[in-house]
Amino acid sequence: MGKKNKQFVEKITAMEDDFAQWYTDVVKQADLVDYGPVRGTMIIKPEGFAIWENIRGELDRQIKETGHSNVSFPLFIPESLLQKEKDHVEGFAPEVAWVTHGGEEELNERLVVRPTSEALFCEYYSKNIHSYRDLPMLYNQWSNVVRWEKTTRPFLRSLEFLWQEGHTAHATYEDAEAEADKMLDVYADVVENHLAIPVVKGRKTEKEKFAGAKYTLTIESLMHDGKALQSGTSHHFGSGFAEAFDITYLDENGEQQHVHQTSWGITTRLIGALIMVHGDNRGLVIPPKIAPTQAMIVPIAQHKEGVLDKAYDLRDRLQNLARVDIDGSDKMPGWKFNEYEMKGIPVRIEMGPKDIEKEQVVLVRRDTGEKEFISLDELEERLPALLDEIQTNLYQKALAHRNEKTSIAKNMEEFEQKLEENPGFIKAMWCGDTACEEKIKEETTATSRCIPFEQETVSETCVCCGKEAKELIYWAKAY
Amino acid sequence: MGKKNKQFVEKITAMEDDFAQWYTDVVKQADLVDYGPVRGTMIIKPEGFAIWENIRGELDRQIKETGHSNVSFPLFIPESLLQKEKDHVEGFAPEVAWVTHGGEEELNERLVVRPTSEALFCEYYSKNIHSYRDLPMLYNQWSNVVRWEKTTRPFLRSLEFLWQEGHTAHATYEDAEAEADKMLDVYADVVENHLAIPVVKGRKTEKEKFAGAKYTLTIESLMHDGKALQSGTSHHFGSGFAEAFDITYLDENGEQQHVHQTSWGITTRLIGALIMVHGDNRGLVIPPKIAPTQAMIVPIAQHKEGVLDKAYDLRDRLQNLARVDIDGSDKMPGWKFNEYEMKGIPVRIEMGPKDIEKEQVVLVRRDTGEKEFISLDELEERLPALLDEIQTNLYQKALAHRNEKTSIAKNMEEFEQKLEENPGFIKAMWCGDTACEEKIKEETTATSRCIPFEQETVSETCVCCGKEAKELIYWAKAY
Repeated sequence: MGKKNKQFVEKITAMEDDFAQWYTDVVKQADLVDYGPVRGTMIIKPEGFAIWENIRGELDRQIKETGHSNVSFPLFIPESLLQKEKDHVEGFAPEVAWVTHGGEEELNERLVVRPTSEALFCEYYSKNIHSYRDLPMLYNQWSNVVRWEKTTRPFLRSLEFLWQEGHTAHATYEDAEAEADKMLDVYADVVENHLAIPVVKGRKTEKEKFAGAKYTLTIESLMHDGKALQSGTSHHFGSGFAEAFDITYLDENGEQQHVHQTSWGITTRLIGALIMVHGDNRGLVIPPKIAPTQAMIVPIAQHKEGVLDKAYDLRDRLQNLARVDIDGSDKMPGWKFNEYEMKGIPVRIEMGPKDIEKEQVVLVRRDTGEKEFISLDELEERLPALLDEIQTNLYQKALAHRNEKTSIAKNMEEFEQKLEENPGFIKAMWCGDTACEEKIKEETTATSRCIPFEQETVSETCVCCGKEAKELIYWAKAY
Repeated sequence: MGKKNKQFVEKITAMEDDFAQWYTDVVKQADLVDYGPVRGTMIIKPEGFAIWENIRGELDRQIKETGHSNVSFPLFIPESLLQKEKDHVEGFAPEVAWVTHGGEEELNERLVVRPTSEALFCEYYSKNIHSYRDLPMLYNQWSNVVRWEKTTRPFLRSLEFLWQEGHTAHATYEDAEAEADKMLDVYADVVENHLAIPVVKGRKTEKEKFAGAKYTLTIESLMHDGKALQSGTSHHFGSGFAEAFDITYLDENGEQQHVHQTSWGITTRLIGALIMVHGDNRGLVIPPKIAPTQAMIVPIAQHKEGVLDKAYDLRDRLQNLARVDIDGSDKMPGWKFNEYEMKGIPVRIEMGPKDIEKEQVVLVRRDTGEKEFISLDELEERLPALLDEIQTNLYQKALAHRNEKTSIAKNMEEFEQKLEENPGFIKAMWCGDTACEEKIKEETTATSRCIPFEQETVSETCVCCGKEAKELIYWAKAY
């Protein structure tokens, strides 16, 4: 037995015992990532990257469908350019990597390795937008960015990560507003309908908004341990960057106007989210729509004549219905079961001599562990239907979990008690004062996740100061 | 008239007058790139990036089909890691960007922004390869790399560029050899059959091989001005990197062995190649197979009733046959003709009131300028066939041009004369001595492009020293 097989019997830590260790065990045992030689960097291995390719593929399709074009902007930003928008540079300068030498020479001006590319797109827009006819300008890029984080974890927070960043310029505030809303909807669709993760849509508070934004929209999801994860954000810049970078256009009346801008991004964090939402103590569980392999055929007693041939025939026959693979290696079936459970493949198809005789296969669901015997005649209809059922079930399970883990608090005593007893989202009213927000964070380590679009009045007064409440907030400890 | 239209009447420099300026004019007027704020960096605009997406799509398909997996490795390489393989660090260290500070702190060890990722993959392989069962390991990544070039030109030589880099590890020298060959064939297929650019396949001389390679295979193409462009390379490392990085495996007999490795890459340079091979004095010419838009419908007299509706109907009807777009803007048809010629769209479809009456359209080829009238009944058959014809014609034209521009030289006098009279490839025999290769470069500025796989004996003696010839070389001035 090679070293490769052995790892699948090494038990992973139970999530109840140590969720952080469980997470680390899963990303490693499911072969998703390895650590790079520079602290906090990651190597995304084939099975991790294939998940990213599927997320990217669906999101890219929707980004193009909504009229955006992909582009490629440079990695380096001159220091002076980053400094043009004051809030923006203050937010990012403390956490960037600096290039100071090129070849054998010291540079006249230091370069920032992009932590995000607003400065570059703004500089470009200032040169390339002239008339209302040039608007809207709807750009997106898939790229790597670097943020010099102190504590890092694969996918969740890393020194370098992959993402897409959309950057758009519009004639009016309202146009930019519609764009920011539209892209948040696209994110919510991909995360809910493809990653099977329910989200709360809302707006960030002033304190939590993006550096340089007028406001930030967000989708927030809840992990299995009750901590929240910001899963995608969409920023409205108003004309702040346009004023700093002098991005103007001639309107239809011949008057000079500033553009209004947005930016929006999702990252490889989403892989972390799917692990922490769907995973269990046997490992990863991948929603069928983004699973690189949706069904794995495991031949049983494959040394018996005809079994392997039939199993390969089955693979060929199912190829156009789903992403089906086969493991015809000489490992024991039990090893293979463990391996593909760890890797979260939605369906296992078992086929042995008895099944061949009865013209059937066994389908085993990863999400529930349920087995069903299905005749070969019905398989082509059943497999896609089963994948749909799994997709729906994962979403429903995650939604039920989130609802269970969502509490209401009317005062700080309740807030702290519920956060302790049932860690998750706390819905509580807020007066709108940043002082209260900061106090809650100080006392509980929970942060405001968003001001949800779907407002309710769960009490009349601010959970913190008791003054008149302005709006409902979702609070949670967060990644 | 907006500023946008105006540019399409600005004449571009004729290629006969100043090829370099013609190139710069085309990349700009065809809206492919803009310059980034850091010297030598480029912004790839939507129409340039869409070409890259098509090249990438086809190549990625073939990379996967040949059994490789995509991964993502980090951007930063610790200085000490780059230094492990001596030839490699000597080749790259003078042209890298150095990160010296992260956040507000100076780093203990400088980091290199990857110029290529051998060091990272080798480090990973040394930790992850244990047994012959782990081999071959066939990885690829699509990424950005940085090389601190002194003189830069969009696509051809830039401080940062996009590429794919394959990195593989094999049990034997022969396995790695087969891999290096296979990937060169994949490159040749993509470049010849999709970019319509004929290539010469061969091996680089010792002097021209990749830093750290046992040998380098290359595909070389010839630009319109007679200069060569290295269009893709595939390196065999033998066990050199494996020894430096200690990458070993247990073979089937339980003995410790070093792996044998390859790497191979193609870059956004290919966009430069397609411009310089197919372009003409009216601008860009994109081969249909990789053209983001294959046919552009231009309505004529579109203010007349029904014209625009019919044109949009036509677009919808052709949508599944080819990548068809329509320009229904209020610009004059003449402007549109110029614009889409500049942008190299393979076919223009004109449709006006008379055509509607006659139930026909006019097809205009970008490559030859030929017009044909085709009845609507036949269009669905004709359009794909016409795109095929254009694809074939572009390849044949480029091949004929390369053949015309390929001379034979038997001595240095002939060499210099032919290089002067008919700039292009010079086929000449070589004794195998690097001194002759260097002398030729010094005297003519032509470099050895490759030792072609298809060898001929064009004379018995070395073109430079007159001693006994060992092999045929393709020489040329090169980008």
